[in-house]
Amino acid sequence: MHLTIVNPNTTITMTHTIGEAARAVAAPGTRIEAVNPDSGPASIEGYYDEVFSIPGMLAEMRARPHADAFVIACFDDTGLDAARSLVKVPVIGIGEAAMHMATLLATKFSVVTTLAVSVPALEHNVHKYGFAHRCARVRACEVPVLELENPASDARSRISAEIARAKADDRAEAIVLGCAGMADLAAALSAEHGLPVIDGVASAVKLAESLHGLGMKTSKVGGYAPPRPKTYSGAFASAAVSTED
Amino acid sequence: MHLTIVNPNTTITMTHTIGEAARAVAAPGTRIEAVNPDSGPASIEGYYDEVFSIPGMLAEMRARPHADAFVIACFDDTGLDAARSLVKVPVIGIGEAAMHMATLLATKFSVVTTLAVSVPALEHNVHKYGFAHRCARVRACEVPVLELENPASDARSRISAEIARAKADDRAEAIVLGCAGMADLAAALSAEHGLPVIDGVASAVKLAESLHGLGMKTSKVGGYAPPRPKTYSGAFASAAVSTED
Amino acid sequence: MHLTIVNPNTTITMTHTIGEAARAVAAPGTRIEAVNPDSGPASIEGYYDEVFSIPGMLAEMRARPHADAFVIACFDDTGLDAARSLVKVPVIGIGEAAMHMATLLATKFSVVTTLAVSVPALEHNVHKYGFAHRCARVRACEVPVLELENPASDARSRISAEIARAKADDRAEAIVLGCAGMADLAAALSAEHGLPVIDGVASAVKLAESLHGLGMKTSKVGGYAPPRPKTYSGAFASAAVSTED
Amino acid sequence: MHLTIVNPNTTITMTHTIGEAARAVAAPGTRIEAVNPDSGPASIEGYYDEVFSIPGMLAEMRARPHADAFVIACFDDTGLDAARSLVKVPVIGIGEAAMHMATLLATKFSVVTTLAVSVPALEHNVHKYGFAHRCARVRACEVPVLELENPASDARSRISAEIARAKADDRAEAIVLGCAGMADLAAALSAEHGLPVIDGVASAVKLAESLHGLGMKTSKVGGYAPPRPKTYSGAFASAAVSTED
Amino acid sequence: MHLTIVNPNTTITMTHTIGEAARAVAAPGTRIEAVNPDSGPASIEGYYDEVFSIPGMLAEMRARPHADAFVIACFDDTGLDAARSLVKVPVIGIGEAAMHMATLLATKFSVVTTLAVSVPALEHNVHKYGFAHRCARVRACEVPVLELENPASDARSRISAEIARAKADDRAEAIVLGCAGMADLAAALSAEHGLPVIDGVASAVKLAESLHGLGMKTSKVGGYAPPRPKTYSGAFASAAVSTED
Amino acid sequence: MHLTIVNPNTTITMTHTIGEAARAVAAPGTRIEAVNPDSGPASIEGYYDEVFSIPGMLAEMRARPHADAFVIACFDDTGLDAARSLVKVPVIGIGEAAMHMATLLATKFSVVTTLAVSVPALEHNVHKYGFAHRCARVRACEVPVLELENPASDARSRISAEIARAKADDRAEAIVLGCAGMADLAAALSAEHGLPVIDGVASAVKLAESLHGLGMKTSKVGGYAPPRPKTYSGAFASAAVSTED
Repeated sequence: MHLTIVNPNTTITMTHTIGEAARAVAAPGTRIEAVNPDSGPASIEGYYDEVFSIPGMLAEMRARPHADAFVIACFDDTGLDAARSLVKVPVIGIGEAAMHMATLLATKFSVVTTLAVSVPALEHNVHKYGFAHRCARVRACEVPVLELENPASDARSRISAEIARAKADDRAEAIVLGCAGMADLAAALSAEHGLPVIDGVASAVKLAESLHGLGMKTSKVGGYAPPRPKTYSGAFASAAVSTED
Repeated sequence: MHLTIVNPNTTITMTHTIGEAARAVAAPGTRIEAVNPDSGPASIEGYYDEVFSIPGMLAEMRARPHADAFVIACFDDTGLDAARSLVKVPVIGIGEAAMHMATLLATKFSVVTTLAVSVPALEHNVHKYGFAHRCARVRACEVPVLELENPASDARSRISAEIARAKADDRAEAIVLGCAGMADLAAALSAEHGLPVIDGVASAVKLAESLHGLGMKTSKVGGYAPPRPKTYSGAFASAAVSTED
Repeated sequence: MHLTIVNPNTTITMTHTIGEAARAVAAPGTRIEAVNPDSGPASIEGYYDEVFSIPGMLAEMRARPHADAFVIACFDDTGLDAARSLVKVPVIGIGEAAMHMATLLATKFSVVTTLAVSVPALEHNVHKYGFAHRCARVRACEVPVLELENPASDARSRISAEIARAKADDRAEAIVLGCAGMADLAAALSAEHGLPVIDGVASAVKLAESLHGLGMKTSKVGGYAPPRPKTYSGAFASAAVSTED
Repeated sequence: MHLTIVNPNTTITMTHTIGEAARAVAAPGTRIEAVNPDSGPASIEGYYDEVFSIPGMLAEMRARPHADAFVIACFDDTGLDAARSLVKVPVIGIGEAAMHMATLLATKFSVVTTLAVSVPALEHNVHKYGFAHRCARVRACEVPVLELENPASDARSRISAEIARAKADDRAEAIVLGCAGMADLAAALSAEHGLPVIDGVASAVKLAESLHGLGMKTSKVGGYAPPRPKTYSGAFASAAVSTED
Repeated sequence: MHLTIVNPNTTITMTHTIGEAARAVAAPGTRIEAVNPDSGPASIEGYYDEVFSIPGMLAEMRARPHADAFVIACFDDTGLDAARSLVKVPVIGIGEAAMHMATLLATKFSVVTTLAVSVPALEHNVHKYGFAHRCARVRACEVPVLELENPASDARSRISAEIARAKADDRAEAIVLGCAGMADLAAALSAEHGLPVIDGVASAVKLAESLHGLGMKTSKVGGYAPPRPKTYSGAFASAAVSTED
Repeated sequence: MHLTIVNPNTTITMTHTIGEAARAVAAPGTRIEAVNPDSGPASIEGYYDEVFSIPGMLAEMRARPHADAFVIACFDDTGLDAARSLVKVPVIGIGEAAMHMATLLATKFSVVTTLAVSVPALEHNVHKYGFAHRCARVRACEVPVLELENPASDARSRISAEIARAKADDRAEAIVLGCAGMADLAAALSAEHGLPVIDGVASAVKLAESLHGLGMKTSKVGGYAPPRPKTYSGAFASAAVSTED
């Protein structure tokens, strides 16, 4: 299968890291393509940045009619519902992917994300997905997204310290890493803390492979029905969908 | 006060109608400015259209640092959280406005919106706002948004029929009209059906005036903290916020 | 418009303070009348006191058929549903008013009220209104209601300390002041702590003005239908409503 | 034990019926005293009537310091929290009693009450008690409370028809009768429809006997702590509680 | 009445203690029979042990067609739904019994159980019963079940310390003891901490007596309908129910 | 990987069908082993039957220390929590698997299961997993489990009719088939009704492969910690787990 992973931010090195993390877990027959839009923010930290990443992300998706499934590689699950309205193939967000996996392995999990400004958006997703009684707490380690790419930063130790607090104070039985940029840390942190530490990129690759393997597609009845054809103006004229779609 | 109402779609006639509806209820000292973005969809019907309306909507907001408050005039409350992250003044969505007003007048309400494709997005908002036990049902009358502007359509009779069903079948005590384009129908439908029929545009104008009158501003602690300065690329380079903001 | 604010307790000095707080935010055309019943408790602290404040409060309302809207100036929203059953005009409780406003300004708020005995009643209201996922915690500063009227008390410093704890420990983004007697403290505490501090009296005045300005009235279908005429005996014979009402 | 049942309305014949229903199920050692206040409404139908029944009801309770437990015999559980604040012994509402019993016998129940005006108050109680996922629906048979006392009315057939609808349409496994005046119908309707039909008066008698038998008392920590002594004015001066209480 | 209490574990001394606790509160006409299965675990600590206690427990129930009601004396309410499917008489779990009683005495309670491994199963029950907003926290005192039988252990002091924390930190107004083996401690701990401390065994005896006294039986419509006759193989061939049952 | 699928009932032909359904979707490297216990009921229809299937199911699991993951092939997710307590590898229930998949493809789903007696157990699982706001309704087509194996039955047409009702009346966007015995019908019903029809066996195989592929294991902190070693008596003596496990 052809699996396109869209990093919604414009930081190419992060896209590369995400692609590597995806390839590391992909099944033999899965061709991973990791892309990012040309336009938008260099990182997504809170509600404002999300907005400007989605049109470019959807453009990348429209440009890939041959993709068998898509993964949205931002823990906010940026633009997930719109993406599902656009295409017929499965679309998986890394945030939901990690949380679903967590509920299959533990009765209660905590999320460790980057900055406090992102916590309400993630709490909102927890509520939306129905996991409010399974998610003990969404925690921020106060490391900016792009600092995760900096090997000289104290990102890893801050994340590890927050996991320790989640285990002790939240009685978390599993940890969900709340940023695509943390993908490479999951295995070591899991060994260190003695509980599942779950990365969304890897989780989403597996869920996308699963749905494709089952021949399942996004429902086109109801909320994800194709957008009605209409005039799109200005910079977004190209976003109009044709009646054939 | 200067109150800017942003219709997130690009249909100027609808913006005009919304502006008139707003002026009809505005307090003497309120100057209503109704605007819409140049780029984006002609109407917003479901998750996909929402995405392309928000960047232009936020651009209109950034261009109006003198506004004392903003209203987002789409019943989906399109981009509401991002807008609150951008500005310090109050921002009100017409969907939330109408629902809050409904809970002050009745123990249970139903929403009557345009198309079935929008129902899940609105149900999601109901859940997000906490009104799931107060909202009996979100109903679609299957009238496209722009058809509301066509006096020859059967839009009014379809909406009225749906209200009758909500009163009888949902035991709704109040009705929330689920589209900015229905603003002019509220009073007549309320008289016809003998219960409050609530328009979001008018409701949002009043809530915006209220918050401004109280000197209240959007919280800048937590989820609506100002976006961290960062590189914005391509079409959205202009969306970057400066450190002074 | 004529806006009657009923302080359900019998402390006239508190009624005066509430009236002043209301007039300070009222629109030019709003005539504020602040009243309290002759009979009932001097302050309302918990479930028991509420009961004895409501009959007198409703009597004040019945005596004012000319009022365009009512505000119930106790943070417990004492007798709110009964008041809405009695009159056709809008009725707003200061507790609900402040909480609704908080959700328009922040993703999460905490309440700071007077005594621990009132906390369960307020938590119950939070649950009833649907804000359980938006209200981080209801906190008591352990200052009795009437002590708020005593300039020599340490009330202000206790409230401020509790706000600091709510900001740090609850990650509250806004604070709701949980007593009518705290109305005059909101602005200064907001400046001190750098987040919205919301007073219910001012909030309720604005919501009442808003609903009146929109021509909205309480629904008379369902739970707020007029009471059926029936015999009322003894001290409450005067509470019977006539068939014309 | 001495068990005082307070019918909060002033209809003596109904108090008599309630007393008989209670005595029919009481344990040998239980002395049932059924009383009603002198002042208040002849029946309780909706939020307004509730208010005027509670002060008299609490006066009856204050006058009986020798009671070992109290039952509030109105399905709205009128004044239940205030009553618990007043006394140290257990207080049981017939609405909560019947619903608790229902959840011990079936996975899902429906309530059949008198008038539609009472439905929102009962739905609110269902939500407050935590049974929203266990209560399929609150139904009204549109029989006024006092009509239940009229043997010539069609009350029984209307209630039976509503039970049939609850069984077929709500998939209810048990029925809760939503009015004290229906107490005498439970056994026959249960036999007729082949599922548990639960009366609140009988249920509450048993729960009160249970708590007394266990030596359990109402918690005086938190929400039901004794009211702080304070001035009560006018008609309610006698409602003030002393410091010794 | 004949009330059979099944201790689902195989520890006879604990069955004896439970029987004594039950007899201490039983009504004069109640004959208490305390039994336990021959096969299964010596104590139930978490999800795994539960499984192996239920077949034996149900065998004890099938062998007692003369019982008027059953109590399941494990705080996990082990096999409760299956037991209700098997018999027509009432079946009460001690966990649900204690929690129902707690909500009749206090606005908020905490549970103090034995080991952390049991906490998720109990939190699940809290969620299932609808008490998530009434249960402040489920706490473990880290005393194994059978250690409660050892007079030389520090079990009592650990439980007492946990109650103190629940009162201070959770603002619990009542305490539910989360193990049948704690039945004898309730009265002394209640006196010590000044709030209701509720034992499930005693609570369940009273609820069983209540339902029997009311002539109420388990609903046989829906989820507790009798099992359809079918082949049961191997060790469980005896578990097949006949069509007459 | 070695994936063991345990059909918890004793019907070997059904085990064979399940194994075939699993092999049809398994990845190249997955060896599917489908087993069932020797003892227990021939089909699982409601709470009672569940109990007697679990000990045998767990025995099958204990006997396969080499398995890399387990699937429990009954839609009730029979014994799922106990199974997770027993082993370190992932365990997936087919009910949860299908529901998780449904939420990745649609905003709302309905379940179509066999008999009404199973509906409450499934509704309970929906509530436990957090999908109450995503699951429109659990429907029964009133076809007994083993009748699904009978080609002459009208099972398929009854299921199809129920799907049509779910689409029209529940506004379901996807259908979850509520029995392992329906696995072979999913594709045809999906084509017939034009929306995703999801089978739990196939879904669970893919989730088990996913977790194994990611190297994830069941958390051993908290609720799924290994059972404490203890005496197991009688028929279940062999169920005792050793300290090394």
